[in-house]
Amino acid sequence: MSNLTEPRTLKGFQDFLPERMMPREEVLDIARRVYRSYGFPPIDTPALEYSEILLANVDEGAEIKKQLYRFRDAGDRDVALRFDLTVPLARFTAQHLNELRMPFKRYQMGTVWRGESPQAGRYREFMQCDFDIIGTTSNAADIEIALVICDLLEALRGRFGFEGFEVRVNNRLVLNGLLGELGLADKTVPVLRALDKLPKIGREKVREEMTKEAGLSPEQGGRAIELVEKSTGGNIEILDRLERQFAHNESALRGVGNLRELCHVAEQAGVPEGRIRVDLSICRGLDYYTGTVYETFLTDLPGIGSICSGGRYDNLTGRYTRQALPGVGASLGLDRLLAAMEELNKLPQESTPAPVLMTQFVPERLGDYQRVARELRAVGISVEVFPDAKRIGQQLQYAERRGFRVALIAGPDEFTRGEWKVKNLAARAEEVIPEAEVVDVVRRRLNAV
Amino acid sequence: MSNLTEPRTLKGFQDFLPERMMPREEVLDIARRVYRSYGFPPIDTPALEYSEILLANVDEGAEIKKQLYRFRDAGDRDVALRFDLTVPLARFTAQHLNELRMPFKRYQMGTVWRGESPQAGRYREFMQCDFDIIGTTSNAADIEIALVICDLLEALRGRFGFEGFEVRVNNRLVLNGLLGELGLADKTVPVLRALDKLPKIGREKVREEMTKEAGLSPEQGGRAIELVEKSTGGNIEILDRLERQFAHNESALRGVGNLRELCHVAEQAGVPEGRIRVDLSICRGLDYYTGTVYETFLTDLPGIGSICSGGRYDNLTGRYTRQALPGVGASLGLDRLLAAMEELNKLPQESTPAPVLMTQFVPERLGDYQRVARELRAVGISVEVFPDAKRIGQQLQYAERRGFRVALIAGPDEFTRGEWKVKNLAARAEEVIPEAEVVDVVRRRLNAV
Repeated sequence: MSNLTEPRTLKGFQDFLPERMMPREEVLDIARRVYRSYGFPPIDTPALEYSEILLANVDEGAEIKKQLYRFRDAGDRDVALRFDLTVPLARFTAQHLNELRMPFKRYQMGTVWRGESPQAGRYREFMQCDFDIIGTTSNAADIEIALVICDLLEALRGRFGFEGFEVRVNNRLVLNGLLGELGLADKTVPVLRALDKLPKIGREKVREEMTKEAGLSPEQGGRAIELVEKSTGGNIEILDRLERQFAHNESALRGVGNLRELCHVAEQAGVPEGRIRVDLSICRGLDYYTGTVYETFLTDLPGIGSICSGGRYDNLTGRYTRQALPGVGASLGLDRLLAAMEELNKLPQESTPAPVLMTQFVPERLGDYQRVARELRAVGISVEVFPDAKRIGQQLQYAERRGFRVALIAGPDEFTRGEWKVKNLAARAEEVIPEAEVVDVVRRRLNAV
Repeated sequence: MSNLTEPRTLKGFQDFLPERMMPREEVLDIARRVYRSYGFPPIDTPALEYSEILLANVDEGAEIKKQLYRFRDAGDRDVALRFDLTVPLARFTAQHLNELRMPFKRYQMGTVWRGESPQAGRYREFMQCDFDIIGTTSNAADIEIALVICDLLEALRGRFGFEGFEVRVNNRLVLNGLLGELGLADKTVPVLRALDKLPKIGREKVREEMTKEAGLSPEQGGRAIELVEKSTGGNIEILDRLERQFAHNESALRGVGNLRELCHVAEQAGVPEGRIRVDLSICRGLDYYTGTVYETFLTDLPGIGSICSGGRYDNLTGRYTRQALPGVGASLGLDRLLAAMEELNKLPQESTPAPVLMTQFVPERLGDYQRVARELRAVGISVEVFPDAKRIGQQLQYAERRGFRVALIAGPDEFTRGEWKVKNLAARAEEVIPEAEVVDVVRRRLNAV
């Protein structure tokens, strides 16, 4: 007893108490439902992999190498915790190629680990919610990813009540065309990586980075920034302008055509106007994107950054097999979304998933309390039975603090008369009803709140 | 390209392809729903903790010390991956004592890691699904745990269609009483640990272990085994017999009384007869149980072992805080349950969560395909849109292999006439209907299958 260990979590790691875990589970549940509605099935892969596998695609000096949780296991294998779900997907696809039929769709929701310097809102353990379509170059897949994002955000909006959102799309082929016009075709990677930081670090810093990393003159850098910022006007307007601009650039024209089809199909499929916007400044920093790219912003809180991003890539599995597999996908930023909901005051404060508390008055009647509770559960109403026959006042205080909405009470008098007291905690109203009506009345009270 | 990395997982780790991941998610979903219906909210804790925290309660020579994935992180902290969810719950409860109100219920579903020697059905990474009620010694909590197990297994039975199940309960106080009668009161821990192995290793081996680990004579060992095996007859019969036997043993009588109340309340609450059985041979190997203990067996496949087990403990948080917190809980063995369902041939073989495949015939009509697909999704029917306009025969073959039940087809003729072809893949039947009827007809075909 004298030798206590101080209870604490590691720096950059966190516990989730019920108040915060419940909305997390709700978001995961909504994402799962939307992904499935488009025919994406789930997969899972181990948290721990050979370091060699995780690092197969990583450059020598890359930041992620320093952030890896890497160690030798008891069998002296060089292993590490996964830092994203894309690398494991690539390994998984290459390994199970013969069992998977193409096109292969999947979603995966899982924890990933990065030893980043902890700072506001940055954790060393966080969740990713990826969905991808692999094995097809068809623009229909790119379009579907945009539709999934729209439906996902619409479903989240329905739950949390935020104002609106905008899915911004662009195409790397168009960006490459723009840079080609500036004579920068061979420098697209560092230039796009710099351009991606535009909303975060501003023009001056981006121009500096372009000079430093890609050898651009300040003037070239300025023109590159100007080009991507010039995406004003409606989608059709922008695309028409690009089409004229790239009359002789086949590759860029294909990018424009794909974006045009995306906007057109989304409209026909019933996506409300304004949800999808062509934005030439969206370029995603990651080198491996080759076609459509997506970012998603909340209209109430655009500054928090994109909460659902992704794009098309040419060769997912190249490090593990000679069979090149193209794909397109995106990922919901669960933690960022929840941070946004918290900032917008959209998170509920309950700490119970049950709306009803069954109080315990007469311990010998526990069978009756659980019987009525189970009748409510059978129609889908969650009920907690208080485990101790404490004073009713104490039990009601517990109920209010936890966020229960209705409390049920039956003491000796009620049992004699076959009645139950239904206490509406929000309205502070109370009614006494025959036992046969409990399910109906509770249901009505819950629907009314 | 010449430098390929062989795609592979670590020994003892596994990928989950859609066919296996979908039933996993279903089980998790059912468990979540049942736990919530009793008012258990979710919590989460980090996968990685200080080794000191995880090992606070572990004896020097314990097996788990050797199985731990333990290493030094980049900040030179001695850290390890969690090996269960009970130790993190203890740390969590001690750490957040001021924020949590007692009684505190929670469920947690998460991955844990143990470097065991991989063998049939044993993995180094697996999931646990725990639920506990902390901060009360009331038998009402013990009873509720049994009710949750019953409802959980009933819900799983409804989904997977296995025959039946039995929740076997016992109480450590009764076991201690039985051993006390044999003069073995000071040896309960090693004796119970040996007795727990009875169904697995048989009487002879258990007797040997008792001699070796607890110094029992073969005769004493035999009598201990006999006592726990003597639980024949109905619950009331067994409990009446124990009550007579322990007329002067207050502690054992309390155990008998608690079991009696459990059976009585379960019956009153509507749990079907035969679901809960008092079984004196259930003793759970773990030292920390002090009251009720639970194990759950499938009547079709009892040999696979308990698929939902737990018990009451006196002091969860003792290593981290001076405030002793009692609790009671249990854990669903997800992987064992799924192994059982596989053995019983109860797992579906689909690899798609969507019952409907929208084929693609005329690429220019993608907007129409996605529009009708979204109409179906809006009423809760999941639809995959095939991304390429391949030959319809190929698309239908894909549909059959993946396990789709209905395919929708519209070519130029159908579009001209405003019609759709609905192909019932199981029945190999086809019908042509006006577009306005698609949602209704598909719904009917799916319900009929």
